Amino acid sequence: YKLWGGRFSEKPNEALQELNNSLPQDARLYADDLDASKAYAEALMRAGHLNATECDKLVKSLEIIRYDWVERLVKFEPSDEDVHTVNERLLVALTGELGKRLHTGRSRNDQVVTDMKLWLRKAIRETLSRLRLLIESIVSQSESHLGVLMPGYTHLQRAQPVQFSHWLLSHAFALREDCQRLAELRERSNVLPLGSGAVAGNPLGIDRIWLAERLGFAAVTGNSMHAVGDRDFVVDFIYCCSMVSLHLSRLAEDLIIYSTKEFDFIKIADSFSSGSSLMPQKRNPDSLELIRGISGLITSNLTGIMMTIKGTPSTYNKDLQFDKQYCFQAFDKLSQSLDVAVGVIETMQVRRDQLEAALSSDMLATDWAYYLVRKGVPFREAHHHIGRVVTLAEQRGVDITEVPLGELQQICAAFGADIASVADYGYNVQQYDAIGGTSTASITEQLRLLKNLDKQLRQQS
Amino acid sequence: YKLWGGRFSEKPNEALQELNNSLPQDARLYADDLDASKAYAEALMRAGHLNATECDKLVKSLEIIRYDWVERLVKFEPSDEDVHTVNERLLVALTGELGKRLHTGRSRNDQVVTDMKLWLRKAIRETLSRLRLLIESIVSQSESHLGVLMPGYTHLQRAQPVQFSHWLLSHAFALREDCQRLAELRERSNVLPLGSGAVAGNPLGIDRIWLAERLGFAAVTGNSMHAVGDRDFVVDFIYCCSMVSLHLSRLAEDLIIYSTKEFDFIKIADSFSSGSSLMPQKRNPDSLELIRGISGLITSNLTGIMMTIKGTPSTYNKDLQFDKQYCFQAFDKLSQSLDVAVGVIETMQVRRDQLEAALSSDMLATDWAYYLVRKGVPFREAHHHIGRVVTLAEQRGVDITEVPLGELQQICAAFGADIASVADYGYNVQQYDAIGGTSTASITEQLRLLKNLDKQLRQQS
Amino acid sequence: YKLWGGRFSEKPNEALQELNNSLPQDARLYADDLDASKAYAEALMRAGHLNATECDKLVKSLEIIRYDWVERLVKFEPSDEDVHTVNERLLVALTGELGKRLHTGRSRNDQVVTDMKLWLRKAIRETLSRLRLLIESIVSQSESHLGVLMPGYTHLQRAQPVQFSHWLLSHAFALREDCQRLAELRERSNVLPLGSGAVAGNPLGIDRIWLAERLGFAAVTGNSMHAVGDRDFVVDFIYCCSMVSLHLSRLAEDLIIYSTKEFDFIKIADSFSSGSSLMPQKRNPDSLELIRGISGLITSNLTGIMMTIKGTPSTYNKDLQFDKQYCFQAFDKLSQSLDVAVGVIETMQVRRDQLEAALSSDMLATDWAYYLVRKGVPFREAHHHIGRVVTLAEQRGVDITEVPLGELQQICAAFGADIASVADYGYNVQQYDAIGGTSTASITEQLRLLKNLDKQLRQQS
Amino acid sequence: YKLWGGRFSEKPNEALQELNNSLPQDARLYADDLDASKAYAEALMRAGHLNATECDKLVKSLEIIRYDWVERLVKFEPSDEDVHTVNERLLVALTGELGKRLHTGRSRNDQVVTDMKLWLRKAIRETLSRLRLLIESIVSQSESHLGVLMPGYTHLQRAQPVQFSHWLLSHAFALREDCQRLAELRERSNVLPLGSGAVAGNPLGIDRIWLAERLGFAAVTGNSMHAVGDRDFVVDFIYCCSMVSLHLSRLAEDLIIYSTKEFDFIKIADSFSSGSSLMPQKRNPDSLELIRGISGLITSNLTGIMMTIKGTPSTYNKDLQFDKQYCFQAFDKLSQSLDVAVGVIETMQVRRDQLEAALSSDMLATDWAYYLVRKGVPFREAHHHIGRVVTLAEQRGVDITEVPLGELQQICAAFGADIASVADYGYNVQQYDAIGGTSTASITEQLRLLKNLDKQLRQQS
Repeated sequence: YKLWGGRFSEKPNEALQELNNSLPQDARLYADDLDASKAYAEALMRAGHLNATECDKLVKSLEIIRYDWVERLVKFEPSDEDVHTVNERLLVALTGELGKRLHTGRSRNDQVVTDMKLWLRKAIRETLSRLRLLIESIVSQSESHLGVLMPGYTHLQRAQPVQFSHWLLSHAFALREDCQRLAELRERSNVLPLGSGAVAGNPLGIDRIWLAERLGFAAVTGNSMHAVGDRDFVVDFIYCCSMVSLHLSRLAEDLIIYSTKEFDFIKIADSFSSGSSLMPQKRNPDSLELIRGISGLITSNLTGIMMTIKGTPSTYNKDLQFDKQYCFQAFDKLSQSLDVAVGVIETMQVRRDQLEAALSSDMLATDWAYYLVRKGVPFREAHHHIGRVVTLAEQRGVDITEVPLGELQQICAAFGADIASVADYGYNVQQYDAIGGTSTASITEQLRLLKNLDKQLRQQS
Repeated sequence: YKLWGGRFSEKPNEALQELNNSLPQDARLYADDLDASKAYAEALMRAGHLNATECDKLVKSLEIIRYDWVERLVKFEPSDEDVHTVNERLLVALTGELGKRLHTGRSRNDQVVTDMKLWLRKAIRETLSRLRLLIESIVSQSESHLGVLMPGYTHLQRAQPVQFSHWLLSHAFALREDCQRLAELRERSNVLPLGSGAVAGNPLGIDRIWLAERLGFAAVTGNSMHAVGDRDFVVDFIYCCSMVSLHLSRLAEDLIIYSTKEFDFIKIADSFSSGSSLMPQKRNPDSLELIRGISGLITSNLTGIMMTIKGTPSTYNKDLQFDKQYCFQAFDKLSQSLDVAVGVIETMQVRRDQLEAALSSDMLATDWAYYLVRKGVPFREAHHHIGRVVTLAEQRGVDITEVPLGELQQICAAFGADIASVADYGYNVQQYDAIGGTSTASITEQLRLLKNLDKQLRQQS
Repeated sequence: YKLWGGRFSEKPNEALQELNNSLPQDARLYADDLDASKAYAEALMRAGHLNATECDKLVKSLEIIRYDWVERLVKFEPSDEDVHTVNERLLVALTGELGKRLHTGRSRNDQVVTDMKLWLRKAIRETLSRLRLLIESIVSQSESHLGVLMPGYTHLQRAQPVQFSHWLLSHAFALREDCQRLAELRERSNVLPLGSGAVAGNPLGIDRIWLAERLGFAAVTGNSMHAVGDRDFVVDFIYCCSMVSLHLSRLAEDLIIYSTKEFDFIKIADSFSSGSSLMPQKRNPDSLELIRGISGLITSNLTGIMMTIKGTPSTYNKDLQFDKQYCFQAFDKLSQSLDVAVGVIETMQVRRDQLEAALSSDMLATDWAYYLVRKGVPFREAHHHIGRVVTLAEQRGVDITEVPLGELQQICAAFGADIASVADYGYNVQQYDAIGGTSTASITEQLRLLKNLDKQLRQQS
Repeated sequence: YKLWGGRFSEKPNEALQELNNSLPQDARLYADDLDASKAYAEALMRAGHLNATECDKLVKSLEIIRYDWVERLVKFEPSDEDVHTVNERLLVALTGELGKRLHTGRSRNDQVVTDMKLWLRKAIRETLSRLRLLIESIVSQSESHLGVLMPGYTHLQRAQPVQFSHWLLSHAFALREDCQRLAELRERSNVLPLGSGAVAGNPLGIDRIWLAERLGFAAVTGNSMHAVGDRDFVVDFIYCCSMVSLHLSRLAEDLIIYSTKEFDFIKIADSFSSGSSLMPQKRNPDSLELIRGISGLITSNLTGIMMTIKGTPSTYNKDLQFDKQYCFQAFDKLSQSLDVAVGVIETMQVRRDQLEAALSSDMLATDWAYYLVRKGVPFREAHHHIGRVVTLAEQRGVDITEVPLGELQQICAAFGADIASVADYGYNVQQYDAIGGTSTASITEQLRLLKNLDKQLRQQS
C-alpha cells in the first residue's frame, strides 16, 4: 500500500527506502495520528464530504486500529514509509473504499506537524512532571538539613559560609525556570496546523477553528506555507531539554566533586554508584557522570536540528523529517537523566560533620571587612586591610582569628576587641537576610516559593 | 587601581591579563553599570550606609563619568580589568574615600549580571524594532503584489499555484513567532539579581524590592547562589537570535534561488548585489549569501555558550565571562543581518511575468484530483488516476490539459467535459479559502494580523 | 554475573541501570572484544600467568562464544552492564574458574579502548570502500559525458561555460581528500592501549609490544593515564564522517537545484524519488534532501562528543561511555548516505540539451575581457568596458553578441571584427588548459588521478 | 577604487557594505596577498603577458606597499571591500595602468584561498611552537618531581597510587597527538589553488607548477571548481585548534580541582590568580577557568564554519567569506590559551606533602588482589574478596592494613603474613613497569619520547 505512485514507473531503491523509512522513529506517534484522523473525519463530515454513517465507521475503525497498536498486533510491511501510511493501510483494510476518502484535502505535510504537536503536548507534561519530582526531592533534602553550614564556593575556592540547603536550593531555582520555559512553549505552540494541506491550504470547506477546538488547540496557524515547513516548536522543545540538561550537568559536577574523598561532603548511595572491574575498592559516581556527559548528547540534538534546518528552502523539504529523531532522543535521554537525578538526590547521604569541618577562618574575611565598614572604614580600604591580614596569617601558618589585636591594629587602627565576635559562622550566616540570602528566614521563603510551584505543577498534570 | 590585591605578592602575568581583560567586550555596558551603581548608592543611603549628601555626590559623579564615556574622554589603564574597575577608579578619582564606599555589600558577581540584564532589555527592544521593520517590508511588498500568482514549491518542486504574497508572508509568520519568543524572554528575565553579593546574599539591610522597582525589574532573584552563576537569560537571548537567523537563512535561500537566471522571479537591487573581480557580467546576491552564511556564525554562539557552561560548578566561575562575547556577537551580527534583509526586501523587483509563466499544467493535478473527488471517487483513487494522467502527458510531451477526454475517461470514467473548467490557476487559487490558505480573503486576514503585530510592537518601542 | 560488587551492599537502581547499560550500543563490539581477549590470554600465558593448556582452553572457548554471537544464540541478562560483562560471563559459564583468570591485570578501561580501535579499523575500511564507489560513479558519469557544456556557477549565478564533467568531478576532489583524511587517521590511531590497566599500567610482565603486533597495531600507547581517558581517535573519526557529510550536502544541494523544473539539467531516477500523498504529479528528490539534511545529524555527533569530553577530569570518567553512541550513529548514517548517493549518481539522467541551452552570451564576458587584454588593454579596464557592454545589451534586451561593432568601439576602441570569434562556448572552454581547468585535456588528467586513487583504495580493502 | 562595477547603476547599500566588508578580518592577510601577487606577476611575465621591466616594477611596488603596511601607513577608504582591493588600489596608485594588468586571469576566488593557505602555513608553525613550549614546561615539571607519589584518579575517585609526573605527562601525550594532527594538515593542505580563476581555470598559459614551487607548495589543486569553493583546510585547522582546546580544558579541570583547599595538591602562582572585589581572602584560579571556558569558544568556530558551509551550492558563494572570522578567532584564542597554560605550568607549586598524604590504604586494593592472584586465586574471585575486606575496614573505620590476618583468612584462605609487604605505595608503583606504566623506568622513557618530539619541533620552526 502506497500513498503515491501513479506517476512512477520504477520502485524505490532499497538503500533509499532504508534511509527514508521513518517508521522506527514515528511509530510512536500512532495514537496522535489516530486522534488527528478521527477529528479530521468529523471535519470532513461537517463539510459535507462524508455522511454521518461513513464518519462513524471511520472513527470506529480508527479506534480498532488503536487497539491493535496497543496490543502490538500491528505488522509493518516493507512498503510502509511512515506511521501515516500504516494507519491508512490498516484503515483501508478495515473499510475499503471508505478509508481512501479520509485523506481528502489533507497532506502528510500538515498531518505530521499536527501529530508532532499533539505528541509534544504530552512530552511537555511528562517533562514538567519529572522536573517537579526533582524539585521536590531537592526541597525535601533542603528542609531536612536546614541549619547545616558549609563553605559556599566561587571559582571552586572557599568564599563565604552558607547553609547546605541554600546551596542545594540554588539548583532548584534553575529548574524552576526550566518549568517556566516549558509552560510558555506549551502556550506558544498550541496552534493547529491541520488544514494547511500540502502547501496551499484547504479548498474543501474544512472548519479549522472547529478542528482546533476539537483537538484542544487555542488557535489555528495563519499561513499554510509557513505551517508545513515550520519545526520551530520542535527546536524550542529540544532547546528547553538542553537547558535542563545543562543545569543537571552543573548539579552533577558539584556532587561529583563533593563526593570525592577529599571533599567528602556527600555520599552517593550504593544503588547510584558502580564499581571497577579491576580495582576492588572503587565506588564511582557513575550516575552523576552519566548525567553530566549526557548533556552533550541532548544538546547535540539542538545543534543538529538547527544545522539541518539552516538554509533549506521554505515550506516542506524532506530534510525536516529528521526532526523526530532529534526530538525523541532529547526527550528520552532527558527523561532518563531526570529519573536518575531524582534517585541520586533522594538517596544521597549528607555528611554534616565534613561540611562544617570545611569552614575555615579565612572565610570570615568578608564579614571582617564589613566589621571595619561599620567602624567607618570605606569598603575598598577595609577589603585591602583584610587582604593583608589574610596574607599575614597565611605566612605564619595560623588562622586569621589568631593574629594578635595589636598587629591587626597596625594594619588598620579601627580594629577593636569586638572583632572576636565576628568569628561565629552561624551567626554571620544569619546576617544575610535580604531576599535570596543564606539566612534561615530567606531559605524558608525559598522553600515556600518552590512548594507553590510544586502545587501548581501538580494541578496541571 | 585594583579592586583586590591586598593578599597578593606577585603581579598578574601579562598573558593572563590579556586573556582575562574583558574591557574590549564589556566597555559597552558602561551606561548600564552606571545606572545600576546610582540605584545601589541610593539603596545604601536608604539602608543608612551613606547620608543624603554622600549619596548625592556619588550619583552626580556617576553622571559626570557617563558624560566622559559619551564624549569618549575615558582613558583605559593597563590595570583596568573590566568596566566595573574603570567606573570605580573614575569615581574614586572624583570623590576620593567616598567612592570607595560604593561597593559595600556588592560584588562584581551580582553587579555584572545586573548590568547584563539592563543591557539585554535594550537589546531585546532594538531587535524587536528591527524585526518589526522587516515584517513591515514584507507586508508592504505583499500588499503591492496581491493577485500575482506563482508556483508554490515543496521539495523545490512545483506543487500548487499560490499567490506570491502568500509565499512572502509565510516568512513573516516565522518572524512573528520570533517576536513572541523575545517578548516572553523580556518578561521571564526581568528579575533583579543585585543584592546577591558574591554568593551568600546581602547582610547590610539593602532593600532589594525597592532596588528592583527603581531599576524597572518586576521581581528579585530568589537564591543568591543561583543568581550569581546564572546566565540562562543570555543563552535564551542567543537562542532567540539564532532562531531569527535560521528564518533569515531560509528566506535568503528562497531569494537566492528565485533570483537565478533560471528562475528569474526576483531581481535583487544593484545596491544589494556585488560584482566579480574577474567576470564583468556578474551580479551576485552577496547580501543574501551573507545573511544565509551568518546564521552559522550566530548559532555558533549558542553552541559555544552552552558548551562553556556545561559541567561548570555552580555559582560563579570565570568561564562565565565569555557570555558577553557570545551575546554581543549574536546581537551585532543579527542586527546587521536584519538591516540588510529589510533593504533587500524593500528594493527587490518582483517579476510578475516570470512568476506566472512558471505555472505549468501539472500543477493542476491536485485540483483535478479534487474534481474526481467531487464526482464521488475516493481521494486515494483519484490521486492514483491523476498520477497516471500526468505520466501519460509527460510521455507524450504534452500538457495534461491536452490529453483528450476519451483517454482521460479510459483512466477514470468519472472524467467529464467540465474538467476543462479546472484549468484556471487564478480560479483554483481562490478556492483555498480556509484560514491560512492562499485565497485573497485569507491573505487579507494575514495582512491584518501582521499589521496588528506591527502596531503592538510600535507601541512597545 | 557482575565484574564488581564485593564492597557494595545495595543493588543498582533501575533507572541508573537503564541509563548506564551500554549493551544496546556496545554489543556490536563483541567480535573485537573476543579478538582482544584471545590475544590477552596469550599474553598472560607468555607472562607465565596461564599455562599452555589453560590458554588454549580460553582461546577455544572465546571462539565458541563468537559462534553463539554470530548465530544469535547469546541471551542478555539484566545484570549485563556491557559487552565485556557478557563475554566474561559466557566464558566463565564455559570454563569455570579458568575464565575468572582472564581479566588479570586488565581493566574495562583499557579493554574498551582497544575494542573501539579494532572496530574503528574496520569502520575506516568500509567507509573508504563506500567513498571509492561514489568516486567511481562520479568518474563514470563524467567519462560518459565528456564534451557536454553547461554554465559554471558562482553565487548560483551563471559565471563561465564549463564542461559538465568538470563540475561533477569537482565533488570527487572533495571526497578524495576525505579518503586521505581517513587514511591518515588509520595510521595515527593504530596504537595499542591494551596493557594500560585501569589507570596505572600493568605490573604483571605483559609484553605490550608483542600484543600490539599480535593485534596488528604499529605501536603501543606511551602513558597509561592518557590511554584510558583518550577518545581522540573517536572524535577524529566522527570529524572525518562529518566532513564527508558536508561534501555530500553540497553535492545534494547542486543536484536538488539542477533537478528543479526551472533548471532541468538532471533527472533523478524514479527509484530515488518519492511522491506526495496529496499532489499526484509530484516527483520529489527525497534521496537528496535526506542526504543534505543528514549532514546535520552526523555533524551533531561531533558537537556532542566534544561537549561531552570538554572539562572532564583526566583519565577515565563515565561520561566517555557516550563515545560509542556518537561514533556508531555517525558511521551508520554516513554509510546509508553514501549508499544512496552512489545510487543517485549512477542512475541520474543528464539532460545535455537543457545544460547547453542554459549557456547565454553574457557568460562570454570574461573571454571578451581577455580578448581586449590580448589587444593590450589592461585587465581592470577591459573588465570595466565589458561590464558596460553587458549593461547596454541588458537594457536593449539583446545578447552582447548582438551589439553592433561600432557601439562596442565607442566603449573601447580596441574592439575589432575578430570579437565574433570569441563567441564559441566550446572553443573558449578548451582554452582553460592549465592544470585543473575545464579543458578536455585537464579533465582527462583529473580522471586519471581519480582512477589511480580508486586502484589504490581497491588494493587496500 | 572598485574591482567591479561597470555593469552596475546603483551604489552598494550601506548596511550591506558593513556586513560585506571583510577588511577588519582579512587585513591581516596583507603580506600573504602581496607574496602571492609577486609570484603571480612573475608567472604573468613567464607566460608573456608582462615584460621583465613591467614585472620588476610590479614586484618592487608590491614591496613598497608591504612597507606601508608594516609602518601602518595604509589608509582604508570606504570603497575598500577587502585586502585584495586595498592592495590593487595601492598598486595602481603607484604604477598606473601597469597595476591594472596584475589581475589578468586571476580572480579573488583563487586569490583569497591562496592567501589563506599561505597564512595557514605560518599559523600552523606558530601553534606548533606554542605546543612545544607547553610540552616543554610539562616535561620540565615532571622531571623535577620524579618520585613524588599521588593518588591516581578515575571517576575522580582514588584509584591507584601513581607518580605525579606520570599524571602530568599524560596531558603531554594528548598534546603530542595535536602536533601530529597539525603536521599532517600542513602536508595535506600544501597544495596551490592559484591559477583556478573564478571557476573555470586559467586560459592564459600560466605555469601553475612553477607557481607552486615559487610559493613553496608541494602540488597544485586538480579541479578549479573544487579549488575555489574548498575551505576544508580551514575547517581542518579549526578542528585541530578545537582538539587542543579540549585537551587544555581537561588539564585545567584537573588543576582547578587539585588547587582547591580540599585537595591542595597544587598552588597556582599569584601571577596566574585573581582576587575578588568583595571577599578579601580569595585567590581564584581565573587563568585555568578561562582556559577551560575558552574551549567552548574555540570549538564554537568549528560548529559555526561547518553549519555555514552545509548545503551551500558548489564553487564559491559569499557565505564562505566567514571562514576568516572563524579561523582567526580559533587561532588567536588558542594562542592566548596556550601562552597562559605555559605560564601556569611553569610557575605552579607542587605540594609533595599534600600529594603523598592523600594516599590511603584502600588504594592498595588492586595490588592486594594481585597478591591473591599470585597465590593462585582467580582474579575475579580475588577482586571479590578484596572488595569484602574494604567494606569490612570501612565499617570498622580502619585501614585495610589494620584488619587482622585472621579475619582476612576468613574471607580468603590464601592470605598470608606476607600481605604486609604489599603496603608500600612506592614499591607497588615501581611494579607498573610495562611501557606506559607509572614506574620510574617507564616515565623516563616517556620523557625521552617527548624530548625527541621537542627536538623535532624545534628543527621545524
